Amino acid sequence: MSALEFEIHATDGAARTGLVRLPRGEIRTPAFMPVGTAATVKAMLPESVRATGADIVLGNTYHLMLRPGAERVARLGGLHKFMDWPRPILTDSGGFQVMSLSALRKMSEEGVVFRSHIDGSEHRLTPERSIEIQRLLGSDIQMVLDECVALPATDSTIESALSLSTRWAKRSKTAFGDQASEGRALFGIVQGGTNPVLRRRSAAELVEIGFDGYAIGGLAVGEGHEAMIATLAETTPALPQDRPRYLMGVGKPLDLVEAVARGVDMFDCVLPTRSGRNGQAFVRSGTLNLRNARHAEDPGPLDPACACPACRNYSRAYLYHLVKSAEILGAMLLTWHNLQYYQDLMAGMRAAITAGTFPAFVAGFRAETGADGPLADG
Amino acid sequence: MSALEFEIHATDGAARTGLVRLPRGEIRTPAFMPVGTAATVKAMLPESVRATGADIVLGNTYHLMLRPGAERVARLGGLHKFMDWPRPILTDSGGFQVMSLSALRKMSEEGVVFRSHIDGSEHRLTPERSIEIQRLLGSDIQMVLDECVALPATDSTIESALSLSTRWAKRSKTAFGDQASEGRALFGIVQGGTNPVLRRRSAAELVEIGFDGYAIGGLAVGEGHEAMIATLAETTPALPQDRPRYLMGVGKPLDLVEAVARGVDMFDCVLPTRSGRNGQAFVRSGTLNLRNARHAEDPGPLDPACACPACRNYSRAYLYHLVKSAEILGAMLLTWHNLQYYQDLMAGMRAAITAGTFPAFVAGFRAETGADGPLADG
Repeated sequence: MSALEFEIHATDGAARTGLVRLPRGEIRTPAFMPVGTAATVKAMLPESVRATGADIVLGNTYHLMLRPGAERVARLGGLHKFMDWPRPILTDSGGFQVMSLSALRKMSEEGVVFRSHIDGSEHRLTPERSIEIQRLLGSDIQMVLDECVALPATDSTIESALSLSTRWAKRSKTAFGDQASEGRALFGIVQGGTNPVLRRRSAAELVEIGFDGYAIGGLAVGEGHEAMIATLAETTPALPQDRPRYLMGVGKPLDLVEAVARGVDMFDCVLPTRSGRNGQAFVRSGTLNLRNARHAEDPGPLDPACACPACRNYSRAYLYHLVKSAEILGAMLLTWHNLQYYQDLMAGMRAAITAGTFPAFVAGFRAETGADGPLADG
Repeated sequence: MSALEFEIHATDGAARTGLVRLPRGEIRTPAFMPVGTAATVKAMLPESVRATGADIVLGNTYHLMLRPGAERVARLGGLHKFMDWPRPILTDSGGFQVMSLSALRKMSEEGVVFRSHIDGSEHRLTPERSIEIQRLLGSDIQMVLDECVALPATDSTIESALSLSTRWAKRSKTAFGDQASEGRALFGIVQGGTNPVLRRRSAAELVEIGFDGYAIGGLAVGEGHEAMIATLAETTPALPQDRPRYLMGVGKPLDLVEAVARGVDMFDCVLPTRSGRNGQAFVRSGTLNLRNARHAEDPGPLDPACACPACRNYSRAYLYHLVKSAEILGAMLLTWHNLQYYQDLMAGMRAAITAGTFPAFVAGFRAETGADGPLADG
């Protein structure tokens, strides 16, 4: 019995659109999940995140276990109450950031021991502890701990990580226990680098264990857009049709479009929020760098097709001024806009799939943004 | 003919409550004006500033003339449109910040020449140029350029600055011209340090010139709370009853209460916004430092008597977490709360004056916060 229901309302080629149902709310798919790293989608009020159209946000187990700590969040009533986001939350396992952010001390069959990037304190993460943390946080969709390999890597390294990840996935499923009765779901994570054989093997092993949904991990880690898309095309057919597929940590707008065309349902990425804080905006014609002096006297809106407050109420000249002056409002408005852009993109894809016009949507998007999204300016 | 109408609806001792009417909107007095230094009240959307109850915001001529520049703002349609604040804006003359922020190059009868704190470029500010800038910005209430002396200072220094300020006030009035016909107002600024004789002389000279309102400048510059209040008590009786009085750059909550008790109608101060960004909150019982570990597990609201989002939707523990993690949302929520606190304080004073209970309000506030506002914690 899964606490997560997945309805596919329409398909167009490999692309599908539908609903993930959880007790805390529905998630329209394909879905983009804004990243709320440390119990906040940076520079946004949660009601503003919701206003962009987000149905679910992501929390980072690594960050939350270090600060404020999972037990503290539990004592305070859980992550939803803590951060005032009553809708679904997906948490990652913490593994990816242990490897990318911390001083990794020791990796073993049991798990990983690492030092916090905040204060150097030593911590332990195992499949069981990761699930315990995610349960303490109150996460609606929990992820298994896996070993993610940076690419390029040898097949032997990738295979070894894959095998460990499968063993950890089993332990995670056991640790997850009967949380379905509490309305919670658990996703497995397919590994295997860019090797189709290993990807299919990983998928088969996870399906054998059985999860509420399947993530595709270990991509966007250095392999490039083409290799990522090719790997996706080999991986999604190996996953159950009737369960949601989540491509972790991806990506640029064109990545999302190409991934949806290959049957992916869910995404998360820091790109819209991080870019917003850095003065970059995603618009229909590409990306804009608001530090560029050509915006200094531009009275026009950031994106005339966008209904977010940054586009509705302000000029590019004002946003340029805010970014140049390092004003917090610049980060607030550009983050809001970028999240709106991503949600509008997902809504556009859902509508195109429903209408059976998704191939034209993809072709148009490719033509508009180019194969690797040429920047509208530097 | 003044573009600014001032109605006093009730008085209680020297305290008064009423309305300043300008074409762009009404200002309920006593009024607190949030500071929007560089065309943004830091970390706040303008609709949120309005939601706290603010009727008017302040813009800093010094900052705006350097970046983005007054001519640019004018080409973009003026400051109101630029920053999306359609209600009244008061701008200072730039003089105070030339003296406190820039490398002051030369002061003369004509004006001041200084170097920008941003890029070292040389700029000139005269009474005429200050008014020109404020007009280009589209300011509803403009301020005369004055010379503000840091205290303590000798009577001779203070008198010399006062005399120059009066001559500059005359030049400012001339430069202001017929802007009343465009709905704009000009305030003079009383100087004179803590010397009652000089304060009364300055007030008389300004009243002789004739302004739409009168500011009290040169306070909160090192003289201390008691001397400031004593000076106010000597100054406000020398100002016309039927024109608004504005105490510049002040201050702590108790300063505002004591100043209203001495007949002041308008205030501005960076304290609520700056403190918010630094993790400090004003609450009914004093001030709280949200970095203090005693808040780490506190599930209660910042201030149970406050209706702002920070108090309504979050725990002190969450705010502690945001501040400790240097999250932008911490600055956003604490700024919002502090501005709400200040606006609620003004609303409370207006209600007490209307009800004829202002002396009890003042006594209660003094008792609650102590003579100099003892902190609720470090």
